[in-house]
Amino acid sequence: MSVQFPYQDKKLTIRERTNDLCERLTVKEKVGQLNQHLYGWKCYQRKDNHFELTDYFKKHVKWGGGIGALYGVLRADPWSQVDYKNGIPAGKSKQVINQIQRFVIKNSRLGIPALIVEECPHGLQGLDSVSYPTNIGKGNAFDIELISEMAHQQAFEMKNKGVNLALVSTLDLAKDPRWGRFEECFGEDPFLSARYTEAIISGFQGNLIQGTNDFRNLTVNELEDNNSVGVVIKHLIGQGETLGGHNSGTVTIGNREFMDIYYDLMNSSRDAVGVMAAYNDIDGVPCHANRYLLAELLRKKIGFQGIVMADGVALDKLSELYPSKLSAAVAALSAGVDLSLWDDTYTELEAAIEQIPEAIDYLNTSVKRVLSIKFLLGLFDRDYDDDEQIVINDKSDVCNLELARKSITMVKNNGILPLTNIEKRVFVIGPNANNLYNQLGDYTSPQTEIRLKKTIFTELQRKFPNSKFFKGSEIRTASSDESLESVISSAKKFNPNVIVSCLGGSSTRNFTTKFLANGAAQAPDKNMDSGENIDLASLKVGGNQLPLLREIKKLNKPMITVMIQGRPYELTEIERLSDALLIGWYPGQQGGQALAEIITGEINPSGRLSISYPRNSAQLPVYYNQRDVMKNDDYFDLSGSPQYKFGYGLHYGKITYSNLVGNYSQQKNKIFLEVTLDNSGKYEIEETVLVFAKFKTVGVLPRTSSLVAFKKVKIKSGMKKRVNIQISVTDLHYTNSDYLTVQPKSITLTIENQSVGLNLE
Amino acid sequence: MSVQFPYQDKKLTIRERTNDLCERLTVKEKVGQLNQHLYGWKCYQRKDNHFELTDYFKKHVKWGGGIGALYGVLRADPWSQVDYKNGIPAGKSKQVINQIQRFVIKNSRLGIPALIVEECPHGLQGLDSVSYPTNIGKGNAFDIELISEMAHQQAFEMKNKGVNLALVSTLDLAKDPRWGRFEECFGEDPFLSARYTEAIISGFQGNLIQGTNDFRNLTVNELEDNNSVGVVIKHLIGQGETLGGHNSGTVTIGNREFMDIYYDLMNSSRDAVGVMAAYNDIDGVPCHANRYLLAELLRKKIGFQGIVMADGVALDKLSELYPSKLSAAVAALSAGVDLSLWDDTYTELEAAIEQIPEAIDYLNTSVKRVLSIKFLLGLFDRDYDDDEQIVINDKSDVCNLELARKSITMVKNNGILPLTNIEKRVFVIGPNANNLYNQLGDYTSPQTEIRLKKTIFTELQRKFPNSKFFKGSEIRTASSDESLESVISSAKKFNPNVIVSCLGGSSTRNFTTKFLANGAAQAPDKNMDSGENIDLASLKVGGNQLPLLREIKKLNKPMITVMIQGRPYELTEIERLSDALLIGWYPGQQGGQALAEIITGEINPSGRLSISYPRNSAQLPVYYNQRDVMKNDDYFDLSGSPQYKFGYGLHYGKITYSNLVGNYSQQKNKIFLEVTLDNSGKYEIEETVLVFAKFKTVGVLPRTSSLVAFKKVKIKSGMKKRVNIQISVTDLHYTNSDYLTVQPKSITLTIENQSVGLNLE
Repeated sequence: MSVQFPYQDKKLTIRERTNDLCERLTVKEKVGQLNQHLYGWKCYQRKDNHFELTDYFKKHVKWGGGIGALYGVLRADPWSQVDYKNGIPAGKSKQVINQIQRFVIKNSRLGIPALIVEECPHGLQGLDSVSYPTNIGKGNAFDIELISEMAHQQAFEMKNKGVNLALVSTLDLAKDPRWGRFEECFGEDPFLSARYTEAIISGFQGNLIQGTNDFRNLTVNELEDNNSVGVVIKHLIGQGETLGGHNSGTVTIGNREFMDIYYDLMNSSRDAVGVMAAYNDIDGVPCHANRYLLAELLRKKIGFQGIVMADGVALDKLSELYPSKLSAAVAALSAGVDLSLWDDTYTELEAAIEQIPEAIDYLNTSVKRVLSIKFLLGLFDRDYDDDEQIVINDKSDVCNLELARKSITMVKNNGILPLTNIEKRVFVIGPNANNLYNQLGDYTSPQTEIRLKKTIFTELQRKFPNSKFFKGSEIRTASSDESLESVISSAKKFNPNVIVSCLGGSSTRNFTTKFLANGAAQAPDKNMDSGENIDLASLKVGGNQLPLLREIKKLNKPMITVMIQGRPYELTEIERLSDALLIGWYPGQQGGQALAEIITGEINPSGRLSISYPRNSAQLPVYYNQRDVMKNDDYFDLSGSPQYKFGYGLHYGKITYSNLVGNYSQQKNKIFLEVTLDNSGKYEIEETVLVFAKFKTVGVLPRTSSLVAFKKVKIKSGMKKRVNIQISVTDLHYTNSDYLTVQPKSITLTIENQSVGLNLE
Repeated sequence: MSVQFPYQDKKLTIRERTNDLCERLTVKEKVGQLNQHLYGWKCYQRKDNHFELTDYFKKHVKWGGGIGALYGVLRADPWSQVDYKNGIPAGKSKQVINQIQRFVIKNSRLGIPALIVEECPHGLQGLDSVSYPTNIGKGNAFDIELISEMAHQQAFEMKNKGVNLALVSTLDLAKDPRWGRFEECFGEDPFLSARYTEAIISGFQGNLIQGTNDFRNLTVNELEDNNSVGVVIKHLIGQGETLGGHNSGTVTIGNREFMDIYYDLMNSSRDAVGVMAAYNDIDGVPCHANRYLLAELLRKKIGFQGIVMADGVALDKLSELYPSKLSAAVAALSAGVDLSLWDDTYTELEAAIEQIPEAIDYLNTSVKRVLSIKFLLGLFDRDYDDDEQIVINDKSDVCNLELARKSITMVKNNGILPLTNIEKRVFVIGPNANNLYNQLGDYTSPQTEIRLKKTIFTELQRKFPNSKFFKGSEIRTASSDESLESVISSAKKFNPNVIVSCLGGSSTRNFTTKFLANGAAQAPDKNMDSGENIDLASLKVGGNQLPLLREIKKLNKPMITVMIQGRPYELTEIERLSDALLIGWYPGQQGGQALAEIITGEINPSGRLSISYPRNSAQLPVYYNQRDVMKNDDYFDLSGSPQYKFGYGLHYGKITYSNLVGNYSQQKNKIFLEVTLDNSGKYEIEETVLVFAKFKTVGVLPRTSSLVAFKKVKIKSGMKKRVNIQISVTDLHYTNSDYLTVQPKSITLTIENQSVGLNLE
């Protein structure tokens, strides 16, 4: 590329190039750069094996003299109605995206490429992509390295397909299981979610943005990888604690609760190329117009350098709070929202600037942010002619399998597991036993026939050739294929040694599902009871699942139950009816194999719950890090404690803890912990050591406990290990009655049954 | 009394007398004035018909050189274990209290009497007192005048018994029906509760304290009634929205939510002689150490002149947050808590002052507040020798009956009601049909045999001589007297024309109940499932109540169901099984008569629900004035709307509304509404007109609606009435994104199906 203008000069800093380019743009072109108005899958049309760009796309590019970002070119799913027939085959992804980029560049007066943005909730939501366990399961793994490796594999795949930005949920906390998007949370704990957020950012971006260093002072040549995929972390913030668990509901928490729970979590997104604002408000102020949140905290206090993206049509929702779309646009812009998503509001920014001329400063600021990210990701310095593409790295499937293995949590085992005798006759039942889609969660693309054949049942059958499957129930209705009676009579005939029932919920969308303008399911399906916009009041499993379990229990055979679910369904009765109980969550494409390996004992289960598992929805909320007040803990008719505590999870065998020693070094401002782990059993165990702290607060109620560290340790059968854990004392703080962040003067640290008190003064 | 010191001089202002007296006190004596350490019922011992003061009492008076306040001398109930045998007969109340006062004065160097403090949750909690409907029922009446009249009657009774301060719950909002103290709330709405709070203060105190006028500038002779009973309004504040509905739980709401919902409500307590701090925290800061709440808002901004009383043992709970009881005492004192309740913490104030000398200023301030209230209530200028006493005014029972009539809400009537034919054979069932205690709620004293005979059943029998009663179920277990089968077979034999079932819950404490140190029930009883500390997870009615209803329904007779309850129990099935459904709440001693009158049609039901009645606890919260956000309203498996909306309630006949006209007068800064009410039916109707507003907000989400006015109107059969309602625009405000209280620029007002939009600029 010949250098005609300074912004084209790779020897100049990103700031210099950005400023130069921004100055050359008309207001109209600037507004174009803040737009991500289109649905990407409507931008092309497949004609046999080549792709034509649509007028819908071309018109919009011309309208804005270019385009800020384009969402979902590769997206394939029931909402987009994109499948293997009309979608972009994995191997053609880069080619189509390059075709789009060439058009955008050509139709932008100054040759500005678009940010190509794709969903990556549990893997790229495109054809032939890898679908990992959903977040709630990954949370149970407590494995930062593996999460980072996963992000790295996802980035590798997306980069090779021509994608620039991946949308990844990491900030939502699983505080109310009625919420349909519970599966998108790593759990209820902000510390875990913060560490995972950092792992995902570094896995995707490497060291692209490094905290205190202003990337705009660098030239692209100074960057480690100017061809990275940037990650947009979502959602900022608080979306998991809306009143009643209603999707996009209102959040009433106060600033002290907010700072304690969310500030460090927000801070963990610091190095991301972008964050997405959340649909909810915080104490009345919508996140999309929340200057305190975006300008004060995120940008000024935390030092976030990236872009803030709106959530889908959120700005149009916001505009109902303002006299006009124009004033809403200015409110969002001035609060710090840089890039739109599907809304009409930001398409009216030009008119808004005419009416409110002082808003031009905000416009310029946001345009510069968007452009600087385009420079940072190398969009200006790339060749869009090279359509060569490596599709998927084999390592992805390995990583995926490993994640599935580690995300499964065993909560009961009376000794039936592991099932080592492969001669056993295994009777497999339940709506989630033989349906891959039900293992994958919401935001899932169509799967190939080969993938579809790898279910829990088929993997169990590979281990136990003498297996039989009957569904027995749908998720929310009786089975349409088999009556309960016929299943029971088949079971009797089969005379199994053991029954494996795979129950739970499903976020599977069908191509007949109806959707809202933001892609959330509208009319629930009889076989779907979870995922975005499918909030539940009762946490009971649906359909005939419980009657099926009760009836089959009467055969008096050992019963292994596997819960495949995106939220915690009630287990009181299921646990009682089961000899062993595994929480598989939505374990992804390799989930069947992982579960089969755990059932046979090839893999020792190591997951620990990253939520406080409720008994039912009448006792909500039960998340563990509430303030410790001398309240009435129990209800008259129900315990106030969860069914399983945060961190609960069993192995084959057991680790015992002893000799916890803690020391505080004032000089290093660190706490050094040592504890002995003893594996006296006959299996190797991978143990997640969880460290909880209770602060001695002044003037405000302390929290019962907070996770402050975790570490994974492998201990061979019959071995002991002394484990060291360091905690930086600057990470231990709370918000006092004056809203100041202060350090506790003393602290009690707890690892399992071991506790140590430390004075930090 | 001879005037030896200025503080004894009635011609001096309260301030002058207070200052003079305070200066003369030692620190120890000052500390004594802030103490309300004792349980009043332990201060006397009954010997036949005379009363001796106990050492427990005498010692404490001597310890403090007097005593600040004495709680519960007249209290009689299972917790105090005071009954007709060992308690103070109504007619002896003043005599015993005077005996106490004489001892206190004599043993106080400067002759300072004690504040005699009694519970008055729904009438004085002493022997032979009037027990009115609990607050939740009174809320359904929407009758300010009647509430004021009730307070006036209560004050009359208490004054004559020698009581100085009445503890009255008015500030708690019924936001979570799992909470056992739901019955103590007027409802979920802060506007209604604020108007009731004002009515209660004026009913008790008359014009004793009048807003902007500093009462300390007056002499006692200038006071309208210097022998009033002062009211201590409780609880300040937010206790109704603890997480999970746990009693004394944590409240996480933010300052914008707080100011919108609670500020005007707090403001309504301005003229009270006292307020009691609440057990809960607000966003982490306990109310008992909340300087922002007590000093900034209540005293500085609102101008509250009275005392802040601690809740029972709350200061001891608080002390766990501080290095010592001493520092906790100083924290509470400096935040603005003047008077203790049962705690040890404030007994250590002398030591605290020694350690933290600067706290003496706070001590003096609080002592002056307590003393000034004693002057205000005429304690220094009263003769404690006159034991003459009028016990109860007959007007109390009349007022009580009227309140019961108005607090009952009919939510279904397929035409079976009213039952005008007295020949009918009425089969009455249910655990709440023939048990007066179950009509009275928590905080109830033992009842006389005569009172106990006036139940719903006996009153129905008075109307329908051909009535029979079978319990059929206890509240939480099967009936111990009768099997379900025997009840059904009796019913068949009786062959009734109609069945009246009285179901629900009960807050009845027994003399065998175990209690916590603050009087809250500890071990729940099989026939008690409500009241303080009895929180429920599920809202299903307990025991055999539902099976009983289902079985008796099979007789295929018309079924009238009456819910006697302190919280909303699930009605989905009960409503389906019933031809008519009345919510009676805990209707008090006259509740049986009131219900019988409504069932016969002598009284037309007029109650409107002061809560959003939930379907079950899985959909909580459902209170109506949430922020209006474009959320997913419904759950997949349950409507998100309540069973009955706030304000729902039927009459015999129906009012139709038409021709709503609204005008805003900028000059008067008032809104004038007119609407026509048409009663085309054959019964006179007392209608509560409810006016709801939706604000046009800027930058924060508006609330779906807020109650801004209500008015009671009687309309004769076949008549129309044009009703005028005025709204002061200064009362219409919300908290904006900068935490400023601002007025909406426009507003939509709704009365039933009529709406009008008004520009307020």
